[in-house]
Amino acid sequence: MLCTARLMPNATAMSMAGDVLGGLLAGTEQQGLVTTAERLREVRALVGSDLRDVEAAIAALPLPEDSVHASAGHLLGQGGKRLRPLCVALAARVGTGFSPAARDVAVAVELVHSATLLHDDVVDHGDTRRGAPTSRALYGNAASIFAGDYLLVVALRLVRAAAGLDVLDRLLDRIDAMIRAEAVQLALRGRFLADEASYFEIVDGKTAALFDWALYAGGRAGGLDQGQAEALASYGQSLGVAFQLVDDALDYAGDAATLGKAPLADLREGKATYPLLHAMAHDEALRALVEAVAAGRRDAADPAVAEAVAAAIRSTDAVAVTRALAADHVARAVSALTVLPDGPARRALVHVAEATVHRDV
Amino acid sequence: MLCTARLMPNATAMSMAGDVLGGLLAGTEQQGLVTTAERLREVRALVGSDLRDVEAAIAALPLPEDSVHASAGHLLGQGGKRLRPLCVALAARVGTGFSPAARDVAVAVELVHSATLLHDDVVDHGDTRRGAPTSRALYGNAASIFAGDYLLVVALRLVRAAAGLDVLDRLLDRIDAMIRAEAVQLALRGRFLADEASYFEIVDGKTAALFDWALYAGGRAGGLDQGQAEALASYGQSLGVAFQLVDDALDYAGDAATLGKAPLADLREGKATYPLLHAMAHDEALRALVEAVAAGRRDAADPAVAEAVAAAIRSTDAVAVTRALAADHVARAVSALTVLPDGPARRALVHVAEATVHRDV
Repeated sequence: MLCTARLMPNATAMSMAGDVLGGLLAGTEQQGLVTTAERLREVRALVGSDLRDVEAAIAALPLPEDSVHASAGHLLGQGGKRLRPLCVALAARVGTGFSPAARDVAVAVELVHSATLLHDDVVDHGDTRRGAPTSRALYGNAASIFAGDYLLVVALRLVRAAAGLDVLDRLLDRIDAMIRAEAVQLALRGRFLADEASYFEIVDGKTAALFDWALYAGGRAGGLDQGQAEALASYGQSLGVAFQLVDDALDYAGDAATLGKAPLADLREGKATYPLLHAMAHDEALRALVEAVAAGRRDAADPAVAEAVAAAIRSTDAVAVTRALAADHVARAVSALTVLPDGPARRALVHVAEATVHRDV
Repeated sequence: MLCTARLMPNATAMSMAGDVLGGLLAGTEQQGLVTTAERLREVRALVGSDLRDVEAAIAALPLPEDSVHASAGHLLGQGGKRLRPLCVALAARVGTGFSPAARDVAVAVELVHSATLLHDDVVDHGDTRRGAPTSRALYGNAASIFAGDYLLVVALRLVRAAAGLDVLDRLLDRIDAMIRAEAVQLALRGRFLADEASYFEIVDGKTAALFDWALYAGGRAGGLDQGQAEALASYGQSLGVAFQLVDDALDYAGDAATLGKAPLADLREGKATYPLLHAMAHDEALRALVEAVAAGRRDAADPAVAEAVAAAIRSTDAVAVTRALAADHVARAVSALTVLPDGPARRALVHVAEATVHRDV
């Protein structure tokens, strides 16, 4: 049990840094938003080295050679957006900079996020993630459950050693919120749902809570006081909601033939997307159709169902409405930053938030 | 989501206090060990009220009305031995006594234990526990996974608020050890195993690690210094191993017809029992038979297989050898206590350890 495996070759770790920025850049350039793209290049210059440190620290985590730790290593080795560590790095740089403590906090937030993905994939019977087999598909449910437990414990140990107790307490509180959101989502599984309050309760818990913590913890690691860190947390909360809304909008970016299928499948797992909720609230026929799908009277795979959903999404302008709501949350995020000292990191947070609305990946 | 449910009526909570002592008493009285039985009554008098406090605190945990929290509540409401909270109470009473902080630590250790049971039952597809359906059988795997996560977070919050940071750090370390033991056990699943080293690695992680913590945390809550708390932890570690060995011996307490079936089923889940390991080490024919069962060439449900296992267990005196090894660990546990101040709580720890070897439930 003493031997350990490294997660990935250095080249992979290097190319991964700034992945989320690469994604955002691709989105903004395609849409001709040259100014935003230029600003994101500045963000990348500011934190690229920080994110490489985070990747190196993740790659150096000791993982005994068994299916539990291999399950954790497989997910971590796939990369992902690393948006939460980016938030930690920028928050730390609003303060005194990206220290080893900030790096450990950035690793911890990615580990907590990964722990939730490992448990979610078991709960949802997920077979693919990030274009590859899930850990549970490769190593089984049992290994993925314990792998999630393991990453959570490693994250808590990192935070306990690197950060103040307010940061640790806030993390435990936010994990509690994440579990409560999972509980709400489970309760809605298989039921008809057209309830914005439940939607935002789930988004707040499952997505925004950890963004809130990432910004708070990064700020505190950068020496900011609790009031300043709360302002960053408020930015993180709104950014998290905006990010999820844009994710939902992107679900409807497919062509007419595929549009509407995935969101209906999600609905059966208790996961409503905002465009669908909006369309249902403004289209009685769609509401009746979705109820029929949820009750099993209509088949989500029926092309006529998918076409009807797509038509209602178009006629109610649901994607544009969703993006507009995301823009509103981005504006809230940006306004939360005004109490903080101006500088490249604060400006970078503004650019990241604004690019979120324009992204198409 | 604001409404909460209480776990159980007060009457149940009251009758549950001292359950482990009741079980130990039943065992000692049947065997005519009157002196041990009398001593356990003294233990009950010493900590009965502490354990009622623990039950009341567990029953008062806020549990929102959803399947995740119902899943947690179902397991907690079933009671169980509460041996770990008993250890916390006695350790605290070796020091200055059973304070609210000691109570919170006692609740936390039961919550961590329950979290592992919730995840274990999902991993092992367990349908019954403590004579009733498991949480996962009632509420599904998803709810039980998140319920385990939830109890772990509640436990960590309790410990963070009630105990010193050395106690929190030790808990994170012991949870890590528990997960590593699960990983070892998973790796052995479905394989032939006759390896005492792996057996003790798993017992140390899955059972002894949390007993170690219960004693350490209780002692610290009772104001003992770290050196004294380490002595208690050493007692807890040995007691945990002894307890598991006696559990294994009790697996072979059935009649000849049932003897040997459950242990063979366990073996297929990577769980070897000590009597079987001992018998296999001293009976070549049994080893070959168990290899055949593990490889699927023989059926564990075949009465001839069960009878052969039973015969080998008898001829190698495996149950008596296992109990003798447990007695050895109990002696180690007791000797670890000698550095601590004498008094009713220290004597009670000795009685509990000695009764462990004699128990038959």
